[in-house]
Amino acid sequence: MKYHFLLYLLFTCTLQSRGQQLSDLRVNQSRLSDNIQELAKYGKNEAGGSDRVAYSSHDIAARKFLIQQLKDLGLDVSVDFAGNIIGKKAGSNPELRPIAFGSHIDEVPNGGDYDGPVGSMGAIEVIQSLIESKTITRHPLEIIFFTNEEGGVVGSRALAGQLSEEALTMKSSSGLSQSEGIKAVGGNPDRIKEVRREKGALAAFLELHIEQGGNLEREGIQIGVVEGIVAIEWWQFRFKGKANHAGTTPMNMRKDPMLPAARFILAVNEIVNSHDGAQVGTVGKIEAFPGAGNVIPGEVTLNLELRDLSSEKIWSIYREIESKARQLAKDSQTELSITHQEVASTPALADPMIQKVIESSAKQLGLSSMYLPSGAGHDAQEMARLAPIGMIFIPSKGGISHSPEEYSSPEDIAHGANVLLQTILTLDKELP
Amino acid sequence: MKYHFLLYLLFTCTLQSRGQQLSDLRVNQSRLSDNIQELAKYGKNEAGGSDRVAYSSHDIAARKFLIQQLKDLGLDVSVDFAGNIIGKKAGSNPELRPIAFGSHIDEVPNGGDYDGPVGSMGAIEVIQSLIESKTITRHPLEIIFFTNEEGGVVGSRALAGQLSEEALTMKSSSGLSQSEGIKAVGGNPDRIKEVRREKGALAAFLELHIEQGGNLEREGIQIGVVEGIVAIEWWQFRFKGKANHAGTTPMNMRKDPMLPAARFILAVNEIVNSHDGAQVGTVGKIEAFPGAGNVIPGEVTLNLELRDLSSEKIWSIYREIESKARQLAKDSQTELSITHQEVASTPALADPMIQKVIESSAKQLGLSSMYLPSGAGHDAQEMARLAPIGMIFIPSKGGISHSPEEYSSPEDIAHGANVLLQTILTLDKELP
Repeated sequence: MKYHFLLYLLFTCTLQSRGQQLSDLRVNQSRLSDNIQELAKYGKNEAGGSDRVAYSSHDIAARKFLIQQLKDLGLDVSVDFAGNIIGKKAGSNPELRPIAFGSHIDEVPNGGDYDGPVGSMGAIEVIQSLIESKTITRHPLEIIFFTNEEGGVVGSRALAGQLSEEALTMKSSSGLSQSEGIKAVGGNPDRIKEVRREKGALAAFLELHIEQGGNLEREGIQIGVVEGIVAIEWWQFRFKGKANHAGTTPMNMRKDPMLPAARFILAVNEIVNSHDGAQVGTVGKIEAFPGAGNVIPGEVTLNLELRDLSSEKIWSIYREIESKARQLAKDSQTELSITHQEVASTPALADPMIQKVIESSAKQLGLSSMYLPSGAGHDAQEMARLAPIGMIFIPSKGGISHSPEEYSSPEDIAHGANVLLQTILTLDKELP
Repeated sequence: MKYHFLLYLLFTCTLQSRGQQLSDLRVNQSRLSDNIQELAKYGKNEAGGSDRVAYSSHDIAARKFLIQQLKDLGLDVSVDFAGNIIGKKAGSNPELRPIAFGSHIDEVPNGGDYDGPVGSMGAIEVIQSLIESKTITRHPLEIIFFTNEEGGVVGSRALAGQLSEEALTMKSSSGLSQSEGIKAVGGNPDRIKEVRREKGALAAFLELHIEQGGNLEREGIQIGVVEGIVAIEWWQFRFKGKANHAGTTPMNMRKDPMLPAARFILAVNEIVNSHDGAQVGTVGKIEAFPGAGNVIPGEVTLNLELRDLSSEKIWSIYREIESKARQLAKDSQTELSITHQEVASTPALADPMIQKVIESSAKQLGLSSMYLPSGAGHDAQEMARLAPIGMIFIPSKGGISHSPEEYSSPEDIAHGANVLLQTILTLDKELP
């Protein structure tokens, strides 16, 4: 213990002797930008997109590149049974739990260069900046690059003990099953249960990420303080009428389920908009059966998705929609059946104290910030099961993600990495 | 000439000597019913439906059964290059053009026992009744069983010279191309152009058919006098918005083409219903792209079908719908594109004189009748290109067709066959 205290004093002296404050520490913007460009070479396709889906040869090559970087920085590097890449840097007090941070480097098919890489290379840049400035934190630091985020937050689910046997058999975008893929990246699906971390095993988990939405850009704000990752619920609504010949069935003899389906789409929009807040509701999928131009459909199915930071609000809005849908079915003499599909039934709320630290870090750096929910899923949502989490968003051009067109500027990326760095330093001081 | 006149006198004497009028002639209801049941055995599946799609082994076996029946009746039987089965019975005046009648025996996959068979076996029953009563008409009579009606009125299109080279390459429900199928039933696709009949080659063409709609049953009417076969027009409407992440795109930042698409469905229904008449309008097909529950669609396509006996009316209603759709696109800041697909752009009107003869035949038989359009396509629509046509409808239970559930009673079928018989006899007298 005494030894560690001495180390801490030494480090404080080192900084002070250089007339430097920890709060003055900044990442190297051009190195970070170059490093993101370097990573982008793995899997770049002719259309300018990224074919670095998890478990692909491009993913495997990029992982090697990352592991080498972590080793070059002197971190203690390992790949766990789920294929997560973990880089550890000791703190001055080994009895403290680690502060972890990271993201993922896999992409959706024909994806972009920023969703995942910004948080991953940002994490490396933060560690490198700490090392260069000889900053030794009290808490151990842990970088985590999660396995197959885009294909169902596989690595973080494993850490949270949420990965089922069934999920391991599912096919991934690479063509391999999750199980085969995990093996291909150096994991061991047979021992995957062992990677589970207990609740409380980490002092905090932080993730820097592009917004995947247009709020920051539209408002001209540099940093998004994420309030949490929304809960998602899916339902399938099925209106059943009577399939009939489109030529021989007079208009007044029809039981056409297209009509209540159309009214349903409009009702969803109206009801979701009638409430204050950031909730969203989407009908993204519709099918008419048999689906021929010359047949009045017998059935129309529609998918309803609702997202919000509050599960209660989702269900309250759902009940309004359901009641309206039942009325529409009744009015049109069609039958309505509804099936519910759980997607992410609990919102993953960011820790309020960490949110405050992110906000004040941004302020201290002279950056504008706003609070906002994450409408998209992230590894942080799984990490929230075992640690207080925080997420930092930076603007994404046009709100675009999962596309070769996704773009965030080097300045915005560096702002995000600086906020991550300062948040880690503040948490290191303030966390118990 | 004298010889034929003598034959005619002889036949008239024969009837009169038996104290019989031609107008007293009736078909044999139970034999007709049995014969329909006999035909139904070819291709009956376990679900009670009929798997007698054109060119299938069941179709080929049933055709042999039919050909044998025609031969047993002493008709001059042939199969033309399009695979149409033709049975000829000489008239007393070989200089007159034939009165033709018939239908088809092929079915849609898992079809029923009445759509096609009623008119086919009805035609055989009419000929048999004439033969048994030793009735010799002035006009030659010609029974035609058309090839692959359900797969695009193939045989009748060949007779009307409307079958393109391209159509011959299309795959049929049997798995064979039209060309291969025609060969399989004894035709010769290489010489198919030779089957074309000149306009005016037939004195008339008549078809007895189930209604494929619920008008007769609903009104309690026994005979439908078909005014014509409607024109059919198809359009594809495409509303283009912006595909976006359903979680991260706020409601007020969306360009969701589902909304104008939903309003379009309601507008089609409203506009078609706002006009008097029997026109029908259907949106039977809708697709959202990419069509995922978690993506705001970028595009929604809808099929619009309009049918009416008047092409002018179709286009006038279409213009209203188009104008409304353009307004909907404008209001929702989506782009609208429309493509037109010709299906059956000209209505096939039944000959007014023949309609009158059908009506008076029904009356003379003590049967109730009503005029109505055929909303479905039939071989008669192609025959209308080369001859005056008439169609006789009988009630179809629940208006159902193309289904194992289709049903018409033996009485209703016999009524229809009697009207066909009497219509032939009257036309035989009255046609020039």
